[in-house]
Amino acid sequence: MIQHTSTTIETKRAAYGTSVVTPADRLYIRNNLPAPDVAIVNDRDGWSVAVEGVQSPRTLTVRELKSLGIETVATVLQCSGNGRGYFPSKPSGTKWQVGAAGCVIWSGVPVRAVVAALGGLADGARFITGTGGEKIPEGLDPKSVMVERSVPISNLEDALLAWEMNGEPLAHAHGGPLRLIVPGYSGVNNIKYIKRLAFTAQESDAAIQKTGYRISPPGQKHQPSEPSVWEMGVKSWINGPGPDAGPVKAGWVQIHGVAMGGMQAVKRVEVSIDGGQTWREARLVGPDLGRFAWRQFVLPVKLESGTYQLACRAQDVKSTWQDEVTPDNSGGYLNTGWRVHGFSVTVA
Amino acid sequence: MIQHTSTTIETKRAAYGTSVVTPADRLYIRNNLPAPDVAIVNDRDGWSVAVEGVQSPRTLTVRELKSLGIETVATVLQCSGNGRGYFPSKPSGTKWQVGAAGCVIWSGVPVRAVVAALGGLADGARFITGTGGEKIPEGLDPKSVMVERSVPISNLEDALLAWEMNGEPLAHAHGGPLRLIVPGYSGVNNIKYIKRLAFTAQESDAAIQKTGYRISPPGQKHQPSEPSVWEMGVKSWINGPGPDAGPVKAGWVQIHGVAMGGMQAVKRVEVSIDGGQTWREARLVGPDLGRFAWRQFVLPVKLESGTYQLACRAQDVKSTWQDEVTPDNSGGYLNTGWRVHGFSVTVA
Repeated sequence: MIQHTSTTIETKRAAYGTSVVTPADRLYIRNNLPAPDVAIVNDRDGWSVAVEGVQSPRTLTVRELKSLGIETVATVLQCSGNGRGYFPSKPSGTKWQVGAAGCVIWSGVPVRAVVAALGGLADGARFITGTGGEKIPEGLDPKSVMVERSVPISNLEDALLAWEMNGEPLAHAHGGPLRLIVPGYSGVNNIKYIKRLAFTAQESDAAIQKTGYRISPPGQKHQPSEPSVWEMGVKSWINGPGPDAGPVKAGWVQIHGVAMGGMQAVKRVEVSIDGGQTWREARLVGPDLGRFAWRQFVLPVKLESGTYQLACRAQDVKSTWQDEVTPDNSGGYLNTGWRVHGFSVTVA
Repeated sequence: MIQHTSTTIETKRAAYGTSVVTPADRLYIRNNLPAPDVAIVNDRDGWSVAVEGVQSPRTLTVRELKSLGIETVATVLQCSGNGRGYFPSKPSGTKWQVGAAGCVIWSGVPVRAVVAALGGLADGARFITGTGGEKIPEGLDPKSVMVERSVPISNLEDALLAWEMNGEPLAHAHGGPLRLIVPGYSGVNNIKYIKRLAFTAQESDAAIQKTGYRISPPGQKHQPSEPSVWEMGVKSWINGPGPDAGPVKAGWVQIHGVAMGGMQAVKRVEVSIDGGQTWREARLVGPDLGRFAWRQFVLPVKLESGTYQLACRAQDVKSTWQDEVTPDNSGGYLNTGWRVHGFSVTVA
């Protein structure tokens, strides 16, 4: 792992392995506020979330949620700023490379089942707004720091309130006891320690939503009118052999990595060993965990001694190709450009 | 976990969760011989396996194997004796209930790619024979205790030499640095710390193959002519609410569990709350990891106060139903009977 701060931790390319899933202890960690006390996972079933913007608003415990339904979905969880370190304009914030991401399996109750149990949506609900259970540091205006994000109501079909990840109770570091999962949406929209789930007519007026996580021109402040950091795009990268994988021996090499489609499945991945001059189609291998997960790809190539510029690019089932270059933006968000995610390896 | 001995450990029903995969630290552990020194995982890539019964026999290191190909497969790993504790004749051996099983994702090189790299099979190869790297205790005839199993060559298409499980280097407790995976075959056939992989004309003459792990009449010794414990059958069980899940409150209950087809995918699961008098179809939920994995199932039922006899039964894509009763056998192997895997719960 790459340790940016004591609570900001990134996965190395070589640590991803080739088994599709990312184990909890290899998954990146990033928080916008200090996490609540770890004691909140001592009584997981007793954790409660206030549900508003439904016909019969109520506070429900995890114990009650567990009686309403069970669904399981694999998603790519990826920090909005993953790849920030590759933007030429060097936006401020953690200089993530590829490792603020993972593919994990969530289990919990569908948000739509919660809504149905509470009589359906209130009139005019256009957003799903989740609020985290972090303590607001004293003396600060809550709106200025609270973790409260809104996503379009169209996500009602797929969103989950998850209490389990990869077969284990959701770890505190990853949002346990309960996390809102919005498949296909970047990390910040997947609210940890969720305390309030509201179906609202407007986006939250918390700073993190209103003037944070927007796609703005380089060097400029975010404006509420700019696009919010929501859906993830088509993206892929090579994990092996990688810049951190050690020396590469001449001969057959299995170039492998991961590819995601964001809101839809990946159809095709191509690999280049000459910096994008020529491309060869890689093979998708391993179980397909569904459209919000990533796929592994492998391309065997025979490499003689020399230096190679490795790159890969993915295409989703709607035939959208991964960007060659993602334009710089002031927050350094959603970098999917294949060119900057490439790197050179020396074969001896 | 249920601790049978210091190195024989079973997963509780309530510990399975509902995310399809079983994390490494919740996967059962069982060894036929004391494991090799844990230091063998200090140099994983340096571990070697002798490959015999091919046109160009050779010893290959894991480092070399990694250049030959990458494949990933999810399988149910299940001890041959899982369910032994439910046989009425009380066969000797660990009294496993449901927890000597897990669904995990393996990554490694296809055995067929290794064979291809070494010029193809030698003439007359009818079995894949794997030998574990355990030390033979001094003074014992190696053949009497060595872990060496043979499976039909028909498994060449699917078998894997795996160095990774669930995204992490394969733990020593689960067979690392390298394990032979024979998808659909019970645990003992998936050779840990594999040191020799031979394509042989005959089954191994080691006791564990010749006179061990056979389906024999209750109370009788195994004979080489009897069926070997190889393919797993259609099986399912309920994990929640379970006998170890605590008190059940009246109201809506999400009855859930896992279902496997053995050599092929599961098509259908039915649940009964009256000991098999009436059945209702459960819903398969979550990602489908492929035909050798298990599926989760969920059935929501509204339960009033009272006592219920829960049971489930699965059907595979070839329309084979799970056994109602598996006949007793002297080793207590391959118990798939749905009746004995059921249990009663009290709802208050």
